[in-house]
Amino acid sequence: MTTTTTAYAAPAAKAPLERTTIPRRAVGAHDVLIDIKFSGVCHSDIHQAREGWGQAIFPMVPGHEITGVVSRTGPGVTRHAVGDRVGVGVMVDSCRDCENCRAGLPNYCLNGNVMTYNAVGYDGEPTYGGYSRQIVVDENFVVRIPDNLPLDIAAPLLCAGVTTYSPLRHWNAGPGSRIAVVGMGGLGHLAVKLAHAMGAEVTVLSQSLRKREDGLRLGARHYHATSDPKTFDELKGSFDLILSTVSAPLDLDSYLSLLRTDGALVNVGLPEEPLAVNMFTMVLGRRTLAGSACGSIQETQDMLDLCAAHGLGADIERIDASQINEAFDRVLSSDVRYRFVIDIATL
Amino acid sequence: MTTTTTAYAAPAAKAPLERTTIPRRAVGAHDVLIDIKFSGVCHSDIHQAREGWGQAIFPMVPGHEITGVVSRTGPGVTRHAVGDRVGVGVMVDSCRDCENCRAGLPNYCLNGNVMTYNAVGYDGEPTYGGYSRQIVVDENFVVRIPDNLPLDIAAPLLCAGVTTYSPLRHWNAGPGSRIAVVGMGGLGHLAVKLAHAMGAEVTVLSQSLRKREDGLRLGARHYHATSDPKTFDELKGSFDLILSTVSAPLDLDSYLSLLRTDGALVNVGLPEEPLAVNMFTMVLGRRTLAGSACGSIQETQDMLDLCAAHGLGADIERIDASQINEAFDRVLSSDVRYRFVIDIATL
Repeated sequence: MTTTTTAYAAPAAKAPLERTTIPRRAVGAHDVLIDIKFSGVCHSDIHQAREGWGQAIFPMVPGHEITGVVSRTGPGVTRHAVGDRVGVGVMVDSCRDCENCRAGLPNYCLNGNVMTYNAVGYDGEPTYGGYSRQIVVDENFVVRIPDNLPLDIAAPLLCAGVTTYSPLRHWNAGPGSRIAVVGMGGLGHLAVKLAHAMGAEVTVLSQSLRKREDGLRLGARHYHATSDPKTFDELKGSFDLILSTVSAPLDLDSYLSLLRTDGALVNVGLPEEPLAVNMFTMVLGRRTLAGSACGSIQETQDMLDLCAAHGLGADIERIDASQINEAFDRVLSSDVRYRFVIDIATL
Repeated sequence: MTTTTTAYAAPAAKAPLERTTIPRRAVGAHDVLIDIKFSGVCHSDIHQAREGWGQAIFPMVPGHEITGVVSRTGPGVTRHAVGDRVGVGVMVDSCRDCENCRAGLPNYCLNGNVMTYNAVGYDGEPTYGGYSRQIVVDENFVVRIPDNLPLDIAAPLLCAGVTTYSPLRHWNAGPGSRIAVVGMGGLGHLAVKLAHAMGAEVTVLSQSLRKREDGLRLGARHYHATSDPKTFDELKGSFDLILSTVSAPLDLDSYLSLLRTDGALVNVGLPEEPLAVNMFTMVLGRRTLAGSACGSIQETQDMLDLCAAHGLGADIERIDASQINEAFDRVLSSDVRYRFVIDIATL
């Protein structure tokens, strides 16, 4: 039976979010009902709520960094039980039939995965995200939060964490590898922690040295300002992997020249404008430029387990639901260290 | 003792090539003297002779697709003997000490390899290429031409062959992989032959269908015109690897969209202008854009051995030395199937 739940929603593009009531589907055979405890505020929540990425569905309930506790399970559920601490990330379904889904890569589903919010599910109904008290999700898109990970600092791992973990793993970050992380925001600060936990030597490339102390504390060995042209001279040919977490347009050639032979510059940020790239820089060092989209469900679980083993979570600022609109503005002015997490008890 | 040899040289930028005499260094302990039999005409010979890639050294003797016979060896030479059929490609030396040289990748020498012509060697002397009767080369930069490969059709393998073979191998072309080759010129026609010999399913993407019959004869399974917009609809998400052999500016997004998840678009051509790239196309399919520069000496040997095993060589038009300037013009107007090779006996 369809139920309702309290949520914070944007009623229209660019309108402030406000408290409202939304429907949640009946708990199906393979569904779990989750009582949401925390929901991270991702930069993309703002993009979408303000319709910055093209047509959006309103009212919109953002939130795809969700942690909570299972409060009901469908009769066919085998992976989770009532009382389990669980998380939901950026997607809640996929076709499960294409070659990528069959290969365990629902994040690259060829028929289109179903995003946690601002999307239409395979049932034809709009999806609503984590800025709400409850959510119903197919058990296969729900991960387990290890016992020693607090639910608040775990929430941002569900998007920011796995979005950086997935390319770090795919491009073999580990002992002996030299990794640069571009940007020290929500994604970047987790990329530093994760790459360090994986054994890599981490360098932060940030616009200024403002967050240098934080970077070194989180595990970076080096920290350089990209506003200083010397950075690009000194670090030429240094890195096996550069992970760019920024959406600002990068001077790709400058960053590509920092790669060693066979190195990769991987973007997880999404600059809106096309960027210029010079083939000489790539040809002369067999360098690659690539992109990476969030991560698979298995990678999300692996990342959470790695975080638990290392006692890692996001650096967060907990906020009440009433502060969401203010938090949006502060995210846009990079005034957060490093992720806002909404305490859903206040919603 | 320094000797002299007859050559065809460009006396200045944009001046026609003419017969002249150039010095060749004395045969050192580890050098071989090669009587050149054939020299291919590479597009880059024209770029450089006309100073299209920045400052050049004149007089310039182009030619880095060289086959011939060893006529003398230094006392320390162990790899080659007088009478051996051998080849020389795009480089004649490297630092031999950097991590790439030690890893067998002199083509990515970090201190700068020495190009076969239009370069200055570690001895401070300019290098002169294969449009000449003799050349002296360190034995480590000389490869063996298998007995059953005629020296004329082998010549273009030394640059065009290995430049396409190296990325095909690096990106794992083989049975089960779907490869697109962009451009059906000197490089492209060899890429088709090599990828087919490696067991891949090959598609040619050429501006028109003009060379379709040739493409299918050389081993392509499919042949599409890129001037037809339907090509880009029909082939979306098709290829594991797209090897672009063209220097013309590509619409990268269109080509990237033809890749499967985790596919790579690799450029061996060198467009002079920066190209625009849209990060969304790369992020959504974890696609990569890369470059690749010629190949290593070992890869050159492996490629020649593969060609010998499959009875492959370039499709060539043999010319006399007196036709070099005309051949340059015909290369620029794509009027060659598929490589001019100079018969050095006519020089």
